This record gives sequence, C-alpha cells and structure tokens, in this order.
Amino acid sequence: MTEAQAGMASGEVPVGAIIIKDNVIIGRGHNTKEMDHDPTAHAEIVAIRNACATIGDWRLDGAILVSTLEPCPMCAGAILHARIAVVGYGAKDFKWGAAETKLNLFEDVRFNHITNAYYSPSLECETMLTGFFKQLRQPHG
Amino acid sequence: MTEAQAGMASGEVPVGAIIIKDNVIIGRGHNTKEMDHDPTAHAEIVAIRNACATIGDWRLDGAILVSTLEPCPMCAGAILHARIAVVGYGAKDFKWGAAETKLNLFEDVRFNHITNAYYSPSLECETMLTGFFKQLRQPHG
Repeated sequence: MTEAQAGMASGEVPVGAIIIKDNVIIGRGHNTKEMDHDPTAHAEIVAIRNACATIGDWRLDGAILVSTLEPCPMCAGAILHARIAVVGYGAKDFKWGAAETKLNLFEDVRFNHITNAYYSPSLECETMLTGFFKQLRQPHG
Repeated sequence: MTEAQAGMASGEVPVGAIIIKDNVIIGRGHNTKEMDHDPTAHAEIVAIRNACATIGDWRLDGAILVSTLEPCPMCAGAILHARIAVVGYGAKDFKWGAAETKLNLFEDVRFNHITNAYYSPSLECETMLTGFFKQLRQPHG
C-alpha cells in the first residue's frame, strides 16, 4: 500500500508491488508510466527489475510477489519469465486481469512455468483505485 | 536482423526488434536478459522503451514493431499498452508465442486495444535461432 500511495502522490495510477524472498523484501515498485514515459513501467515490472538488481540474477525462484492489483498479461508474463513462485493481489482488474478475470496465464500448463496466484480481497486496495479514477473523471472548475 | 546479431554476439538469445513511426526507425532493441540480469529485457520491451525515450511519450499510436520472433505474452501485453498499430515477425515461438502459436492476445476484443499481427516467414530468423540453441546443446570438450 505504501508503494501504491507513492504512485498516487506522483499522479500515477495507484498500484504498488513488493517482492519477498527468504522473508526479506528484495524489490519494490509502483506505477511510473506517466513520469517515465514508459508503458512497461507497471508496479510489478518495476519491482521485478528492482529485485533482480538487488540479487544480481534474473531468476527469482521461490520468490513471492504481492501487488495491490491483479497483474495484466504483460506483468503476468514477466512474473512467469522471472520464475516467481507465488503472486498475491488485493483487487481484481476488470479490464486487464490475467490471473483470473480476463484470462489465466499463471496456470497455463502450455508455458514452462506455473505461478500460484491468490486473490486476497482488500477494501483498501479497491477504494484507492476507485477513488483515483473517480477524481480523474471530475470536471475541472 | 542486425539487432538479433548484436544479441547473439553478447551470448543472448538472438532476437531483435525495431519500431517504425512515420517511416522513421524510432526504437531498436535486442535481448539483454543475461547481461542486465533482467527477465523483462526482451528485444520488444527494450525497443519499446527506446522508442518511448526517443519521442518522450508512452503512446506509440500508429507505430509498427518488427521482430525476428513472435512476441511472448509479456511483450504482446507491452505492445498493446503502447498502442502499437502493427506487429510483424519472422519466426514463430512454439514455447511462448502470443500472437497465434500458444494464444492470440493481439486480437482479443476483451482488451481495449487491437494490434494487427502478421507472420512473415523468414528463413534467416529461423536459422539464427535454431543455430543458437543447437550450439548451446553441444557438449563442451
């Protein structure tokens, strides 16, 4: 949530992610798409790059990624490539969700890695996102 | 192909991509996963980030991405987020292909963007990849 709040403070869609391995947080990220002019800078991708830089390896075997929002196909693909073991998220993404809502890439046995994904409903994650988009839609006076 | 060759010279899986807008190449990339310890550093992602840095915008509306290999779900997701109009590729990816081989994310009407994807078979793209993996499998004497 701290990461998501940091994103919102910069005017970004408030999504945050952390990566834990051996009980230590090795990566953090929030959406920086607008600031960095980078469509790939979703919270999960930023956190994966941060974690890989921390450990000096692209393999995050056994790691857990926790995100405030259900990963999209791009982020789900990156999570599979990084061999992350478990993903947890607090809100469903009804537009892009690739864990269960639009499709399920994590348990697609046709790929060479399976990540276990868990939806742990969080009112805090939900309301931060709905509040952000409601504010965006308000007319400017 | 020049980008893919640059990747192979660095010991990376030889995949290369370029992005064209208004008849100008605005982005280039090859796989740098091993060198950068970054599982997201596929040729397409590197090229998208490069193109966005060139024009100072995350929106690549109307752009064409040409890759030596069929994009995976991560790269296909990034291409959709960047609103790229057209994707062309020279070899199918039988493990991760997300344009037609394993799934088709580009023409999934449930997402808010459609990218037209074209497979233009290239013996050069195919043989560079098969040659690379054949060499990897050779016993070291």
